[in-house]
Amino acid sequence: MTTLESPGPTVGVVGGGQLGRMLAEAASPLGVDVIVLDPTPDCPAAGVSRDQLVGDFDDEARIQELAERSDVLTFEIELADQDALERVREETGVPVHPDPATLRTIHDKLVQKRELEAAGVPVPPFRAVEDVADVRAAIDDYGASVMLKARTGGYDGRGNVPVESKADAEAALEAVAGPAMVESFVDFEREISVIAAKGYGETATFPVGENVHEDEILRETVVPARSSDAVLERAREVAEDVLEVMAGRGIYGIELFETTGGEILLNEIAPRPHNSGHWTIEGVRTSQFEQHVRAVLGWPLGSTALRAPTVSTNLLADVEAPRPAALANVERIFETPTASLHWYGKREARPLRKMGHVTVTADGDETREELLERARGLRDAVTFESE
Amino acid sequence: MTTLESPGPTVGVVGGGQLGRMLAEAASPLGVDVIVLDPTPDCPAAGVSRDQLVGDFDDEARIQELAERSDVLTFEIELADQDALERVREETGVPVHPDPATLRTIHDKLVQKRELEAAGVPVPPFRAVEDVADVRAAIDDYGASVMLKARTGGYDGRGNVPVESKADAEAALEAVAGPAMVESFVDFEREISVIAAKGYGETATFPVGENVHEDEILRETVVPARSSDAVLERAREVAEDVLEVMAGRGIYGIELFETTGGEILLNEIAPRPHNSGHWTIEGVRTSQFEQHVRAVLGWPLGSTALRAPTVSTNLLADVEAPRPAALANVERIFETPTASLHWYGKREARPLRKMGHVTVTADGDETREELLERARGLRDAVTFESE
Repeated sequence: MTTLESPGPTVGVVGGGQLGRMLAEAASPLGVDVIVLDPTPDCPAAGVSRDQLVGDFDDEARIQELAERSDVLTFEIELADQDALERVREETGVPVHPDPATLRTIHDKLVQKRELEAAGVPVPPFRAVEDVADVRAAIDDYGASVMLKARTGGYDGRGNVPVESKADAEAALEAVAGPAMVESFVDFEREISVIAAKGYGETATFPVGENVHEDEILRETVVPARSSDAVLERAREVAEDVLEVMAGRGIYGIELFETTGGEILLNEIAPRPHNSGHWTIEGVRTSQFEQHVRAVLGWPLGSTALRAPTVSTNLLADVEAPRPAALANVERIFETPTASLHWYGKREARPLRKMGHVTVTADGDETREELLERARGLRDAVTFESE
Repeated sequence: MTTLESPGPTVGVVGGGQLGRMLAEAASPLGVDVIVLDPTPDCPAAGVSRDQLVGDFDDEARIQELAERSDVLTFEIELADQDALERVREETGVPVHPDPATLRTIHDKLVQKRELEAAGVPVPPFRAVEDVADVRAAIDDYGASVMLKARTGGYDGRGNVPVESKADAEAALEAVAGPAMVESFVDFEREISVIAAKGYGETATFPVGENVHEDEILRETVVPARSSDAVLERAREVAEDVLEVMAGRGIYGIELFETTGGEILLNEIAPRPHNSGHWTIEGVRTSQFEQHVRAVLGWPLGSTALRAPTVSTNLLADVEAPRPAALANVERIFETPTASLHWYGKREARPLRKMGHVTVTADGDETREELLERARGLRDAVTFESE
């Protein structure tokens, strides 16, 4: 039986960026408090949380303090230290969701791929590489160019280096500078993602999104993805298979390739609410953030039914150098009945930094192409400068 | 031109109850900070606000401190002290919305009715009364029983005493114990309300809600109200006329009677987000809380188009005496795809205290009667006790 109390449960979140902020926004209507741990004083989540502890993501003393004030711990960033989380869990008895073991699996992309492949999840051909000879051999074996990936620490395409020819292998290895793996290039039709929730004895997947990247940074998500029904169904199946492998409750952002042949292959997994799921705030009744709160508390999951076709587009700081954040010309967004603006409250705009996002839902019979164009138009009208 | 900055503007709110909490929830996605002033330490809004100042609603030093940390002041409770707000505005130059003059008008129900009547807003027959003879004369003149009302301080029906016969007049006056007025009983078909926003050079009204009261406490709101289109249109017109009289920007909760003859008469006005507008969180794209934030900041108002017929029902503490708050058996609400639970985080359950609400939106072609029944069923399944 689920009982709400006052004070309600407190969720301790390692990380207090925009994901932490949107988690706190979603937790409040349920009577749930959020405390965040983040190294940046006055982080984006601070103003909407019960409290912020200032400390690094691997500051075990601070994580311990967070646990002592929380009923459950979670994280909104993969940099959360899995060993520290495990020790704190042991020490305090406070559960951690997802399980730190999941974080460890995902943290090393090679381990991640191996475990998923072993569980029957379809993945592109991949292998560990130690030196130039290994990279060149992979190009030979895969019969094509490859993607060289840092096994740990990559984010938003950082640590991913395409290797188009054997001559590029040495420079690519130097750029990655650490343990690496290669993956065969996937000839994909589109990149898609499934936001999936693992709850207490149940799972739920959100409608499949189609992701538009540029310079390996997510620009837009279109929902539903413009794929066939069979492909969408297969993507959800793969996501369910991925959840089987993951330990611990919460939201998982599961990035997939739809190949030109209509196959689904796993790209990467984030064990947390994901940028490609921000559209759920307006697009479904239960957002990925509310779903995460419900999941980590072991409460029943909510409905993931689509309200209407939806597009979200990131507001990436269009600045040449760091400067105080300001977003001008937002009237068009404010005045559009089907658009919602989210501004994360980051103090500093840096080149291509994610400062906010805009979500637009379909107006009547609008096609997804028209919807995407409209979202881009709203996004392109704002400027990163004060008047 | 509207420009968002980081840190964004801060809205200082006098009052930090559930309305303050829902204001803070709605402010965060816009990058707006909220600071609340409330006498109860750790008030409902505290956990989701930047900060809480602990002080009474008329503590001028604290209001001054709030203003010094805010870009605009507003209030979520009529007990906010209008004189103190005016002096602080004068002292600090920080604007106050709605205008404290509006609060003064509304604070005294007699003054409220007189000003509205003078502006052409339809009101039931009313007059000031000083003694038993006045009350008896009113019963004679109106040819019916009357409602005796305390001119100030009434809330949720407190301070309203029906006078069914001349013999009751004396006891009623004693019960009201202070300056009073009488109003002719209205023979109404239903009680309805319009949540209306006065923005910067624009206004917006939400779809008309039908309010079900019991013991003068709001139980449910059904949207759209089950009235004819002509009556709904007339209600919106009256609401627009009311906004003309009100000074300052913000949300106004405008309670109306629909008479058995299909006329609209004004009942009461609350110069703030209103309990009968909580359904807007799920029922429209821009909730009354987001709209209030936009209005007081002078930002463009958002869309008030109805997503689907919607019912909200209050969770009133069903307890005999004060006790720690706990709400059991919430599974059915959590598992219903069209239902959302809001739990205000109040520490103590007291008899009939508003502890939260449930909003249910129509499933397919569901009628409003079916929707209302379903909402009541979900509400009646929860219990105010821990397991």
